[in-house]
Amino acid sequence: MSDENIVYIGNKPVMNYVLAVVTQMNTGVPEVMLKARGRAISRAVDVAEIVRNRFMTDLEVGSIDISTEEMTSREGSNSNVSAIEIKLCKTE
Amino acid sequence: MSDENIVYIGNKPVMNYVLAVVTQMNTGVPEVMLKARGRAISRAVDVAEIVRNRFMTDLEVGSIDISTEEMTSREGSNSNVSAIEIKLCKTE
Repeated sequence: MSDENIVYIGNKPVMNYVLAVVTQMNTGVPEVMLKARGRAISRAVDVAEIVRNRFMTDLEVGSIDISTEEMTSREGSNSNVSAIEIKLCKTE
Repeated sequence: MSDENIVYIGNKPVMNYVLAVVTQMNTGVPEVMLKARGRAISRAVDVAEIVRNRFMTDLEVGSIDISTEEMTSREGSNSNVSAIEIKLCKTE
């Protein structure tokens, strides 16, 4: 999957990301990957559900993966943060 | 899956739920389901990752499902909230 098909979910309003996904899918790509870390994980699930239920009902969740990423703070200490990847695909 | 194998993730500290999952698995059940809604979704992912990486490395994520649930507030209005279900299973 090319980097262009990835939507990184951060702290902006949910609808910003919903629009990003819908715009991306409308370029004709077959799938979009949502990626989020930490507290943005809940928002990523919201984005997937809103896109699927309200805007593009022909999309389905292809796969969901969770993982742990190590982050280094500005002070140099390491901490672990959970991450999620949700793949949305067009149904055949 | 019986109700006893479900751990509902709310707003308590993550370690409370980690302990609940480890305790549940140690009773001999083959799998535990984590369920969370709304902002607790991020915490559910944290719980799954901490249990798997630090306490019970023989566990794997069996399945992850996301959905939308309709909630009725005390005032009677409806709103939608995202939900997640993470199944943790013993590896063979």
